[in-house]
Amino acid sequence: MPYPVTVLTMFPEAFPGPLGVSLIGTAWRERGLWSLETVDIRAFSDDRRGFLDDTPAGGGPGAVLKADVVARALDSLDGPKRPLLYMSARGRPLTQARVKDWATADGLVVLCGRFEGVDQRVLDARGFEEVAVGDAVLAGGEAAAMVAIEACVRLLPGVLGQAASLESESFEDGLLEHPQYTRPRTFEGHDIPEVLLSGDHQKVARWREEQREKTTRERRPDLWAAFADKTTPRG
Amino acid sequence: MPYPVTVLTMFPEAFPGPLGVSLIGTAWRERGLWSLETVDIRAFSDDRRGFLDDTPAGGGPGAVLKADVVARALDSLDGPKRPLLYMSARGRPLTQARVKDWATADGLVVLCGRFEGVDQRVLDARGFEEVAVGDAVLAGGEAAAMVAIEACVRLLPGVLGQAASLESESFEDGLLEHPQYTRPRTFEGHDIPEVLLSGDHQKVARWREEQREKTTRERRPDLWAAFADKTTPRG
Repeated sequence: MPYPVTVLTMFPEAFPGPLGVSLIGTAWRERGLWSLETVDIRAFSDDRRGFLDDTPAGGGPGAVLKADVVARALDSLDGPKRPLLYMSARGRPLTQARVKDWATADGLVVLCGRFEGVDQRVLDARGFEEVAVGDAVLAGGEAAAMVAIEACVRLLPGVLGQAASLESESFEDGLLEHPQYTRPRTFEGHDIPEVLLSGDHQKVARWREEQREKTTRERRPDLWAAFADKTTPRG
Repeated sequence: MPYPVTVLTMFPEAFPGPLGVSLIGTAWRERGLWSLETVDIRAFSDDRRGFLDDTPAGGGPGAVLKADVVARALDSLDGPKRPLLYMSARGRPLTQARVKDWATADGLVVLCGRFEGVDQRVLDARGFEEVAVGDAVLAGGEAAAMVAIEACVRLLPGVLGQAASLESESFEDGLLEHPQYTRPRTFEGHDIPEVLLSGDHQKVARWREEQREKTTRERRPDLWAAFADKTTPRG
């Protein structure tokens, strides 16, 4: 049985985009390891003019996607109970830990908003997890949904060929990855760091660990603080 | 002159995806406010078998995109100097402040990686900014690129109709947005919060501010700490 992913969106034509290419795309289309279904929210208006949104209660610019429209779109789905995600700048940040939980569930349902957002009552009543992808505001949830879905389906058994490369990834142990280099030995006057060519596996491992710590400290003081908290000083 | 966005990718067929729909798509295709060009990295191999990658120096699983391939793809572009982004889990996080800087530049060039990453020498030599979109690992940079590009082009003059709705957005002042509600008054037994129907603009504004603070405190302790640091206690 494929891992079923359903996306509720006003723009089904935005999909599959990156979800249709490379190993992720092959795992879906040819190998049947996961499935991608889009549901057009526009079909669930009960207004004869097709309206989906209305003005914000309390005033303010823009428009809000109506609770009953989202509820009807959601109620049209069948199958097992799956985590419900709503992509939103108001959400808790996407993390590898959340992604891993989703990958062990019975699939995913992802709601993409537009306008000024979705009526909060349907999010609360149906138990949506609000998910933010980066601290930036988007025009709609579709691109963010692709990030969340790609992060999730790549963890499904068999989707990526080399299971080994999942182990030393960024976020797995709280540190970012080390930098990578490959042939040629010299590129525009810059050499591959000598230690990587030494053939001394211990030295290579130590250098990479130092690089991981340095990069995390410089680029992600938040992750570094969390990492430093849980590790004891080395003798 | 449209704001030019160029994406270097091994999977041009992943685009435009969400960048082709709604106001963002119309601003590109019909109104010419920005342009989207994809450059296929696969065309820049100098290996007669078309290889783009090689094994990591120092050992380890996977493969690394070669520096010279990326350099040639980059050197094929013309036009003004633009910020160079590389989408990577090792990057500094996407923030609205970074996005605003990009939106005032002469366009964007975005490199999407695959494999275990890109040879660090070309990133350093050419001055790529490494950008992470959410703390999760992806199969490639394409979905993350769409998030960064969408966040940026929606800020270009004229792309979104109602400039007013840009003002009270999440991240603008360090707080998340307040929840939204719209008609009907009652949805599955849940009413719109009374204060929003009161017609008292001051009360509405105060309630929304409280909601923003509460949501930020609960969901984003990191943003809340930064916000609390820069605001003085109220008398």
